[in-house]
Amino acid sequence: MIHFRQLRDEASGAFSYLLGCGRSGHALLIDPVVTQAALYLGMLDELGLRLDWVLETHLHADRVSAADALREWTGAGVAVGADSGIADADHLLCDGDALGCGDLELAVLATPGHTPGCLSYLWGGRLFSGDCLLIGACGRLDEPGGDGPRLFDSVTRRLFVLPDETLVYPGRCRAGRRVSTIGEERETNPLFHGVTRDGFAARASDAEASPILAEALEANRHCGRRRATDFSCHSLIQGDKTCGS
Amino acid sequence: MIHFRQLRDEASGAFSYLLGCGRSGHALLIDPVVTQAALYLGMLDELGLRLDWVLETHLHADRVSAADALREWTGAGVAVGADSGIADADHLLCDGDALGCGDLELAVLATPGHTPGCLSYLWGGRLFSGDCLLIGACGRLDEPGGDGPRLFDSVTRRLFVLPDETLVYPGRCRAGRRVSTIGEERETNPLFHGVTRDGFAARASDAEASPILAEALEANRHCGRRRATDFSCHSLIQGDKTCGS
Repeated sequence: MIHFRQLRDEASGAFSYLLGCGRSGHALLIDPVVTQAALYLGMLDELGLRLDWVLETHLHADRVSAADALREWTGAGVAVGADSGIADADHLLCDGDALGCGDLELAVLATPGHTPGCLSYLWGGRLFSGDCLLIGACGRLDEPGGDGPRLFDSVTRRLFVLPDETLVYPGRCRAGRRVSTIGEERETNPLFHGVTRDGFAARASDAEASPILAEALEANRHCGRRRATDFSCHSLIQGDKTCGS
Repeated sequence: MIHFRQLRDEASGAFSYLLGCGRSGHALLIDPVVTQAALYLGMLDELGLRLDWVLETHLHADRVSAADALREWTGAGVAVGADSGIADADHLLCDGDALGCGDLELAVLATPGHTPGCLSYLWGGRLFSGDCLLIGACGRLDEPGGDGPRLFDSVTRRLFVLPDETLVYPGRCRAGRRVSTIGEERETNPLFHGVTRDGFAARASDAEASPILAEALEANRHCGRRRATDFSCHSLIQGDKTCGS
């Protein structure tokens, strides 16, 4: 039995993903949000799962990651892209690596452009594309290290070559949608369909983009760790504003 | 290894689904379209799969089913809803039944309303909802035996109680989309969200509905079998207009 949950942080629109192996009782979380940490812990407890890994797709600018908090509370390791600019991780991931727990194995794809260190994770027929490929859109290009042509190459050469049926689970909610497929995005995503590499950057603005929060970026460069004065388990679990995104 | 393909018939907008068990080499097809029969046979051959079952979600009115043709050419059985009004099937399915091949097992859910005998099939976290629940819509109510309150009950009491992450693979393409989730449909489908059972029928008209073709209905009442004068393997494989939808 494999457990799979798609979790939405209403404040930021971010999606996080819980994957658990019921046989072994091990689990991992992709892109958890600090204000939702209590939800993850409750869900892990309810499903009888132990958290092995927190995986980041990239350095998030719009909310604070729960990676450091979850590491502290559960003993999970934090795995991030080798080029992500995130310090204090337990494991650095590169293109072609595999990571997992129990019966779960995720393949790591380097998909830079939104940030220099963006990764996507492929698990069976499901792609966790972070902010590289969004549903009918892509991540903004004006975050630190953003690079339009690199993003275009990542999407068209690394992701659009996957089978049509591959499910696209993005890093952010757009227009209320939760899932798409590679076939649909290849055929209908207006930022890529019929667009050249040179013409891409001018199109790639996302009216629904989340804000860039300097405080979140600073915390996320250390796995979401906040300064001691801002941070306590109590405030996180209570959803205290000092830890909100 | 499980094979999964979502196949679109451009003429009618219908989706068909191929599910194959790579270990045992057995496969099944849901809602195949007669003009696409050569495509299915080529795909089965390419994947090294033998077709065990053709499953219909319901009596289709907008195109001719490939069930009878595939049965003739491959020896597959045809399974349909016991209340579907389809004659000459090899197996009749009821709510709560299970059907499959190799490592594949589908659960049968009776979801009447669009037609009296509509079935949905649940395979792991994937729901094949036929024309009962479409993406942001539902099937039309003016086909033979259509019943708005029954469709409303089917969707809200049988399908919306499935987990949020359950993938919805509908019987028809709408607005270019290929897949949704139960969570998204429960929250955003304008025909059901915030709508009462009594208020439903007035809303449930689908501007993108396919036409009702008397000739297709007649053929599909016998698993898609056409009169001998209209029908030959040659004309099907060539996509001859006499067999088109």
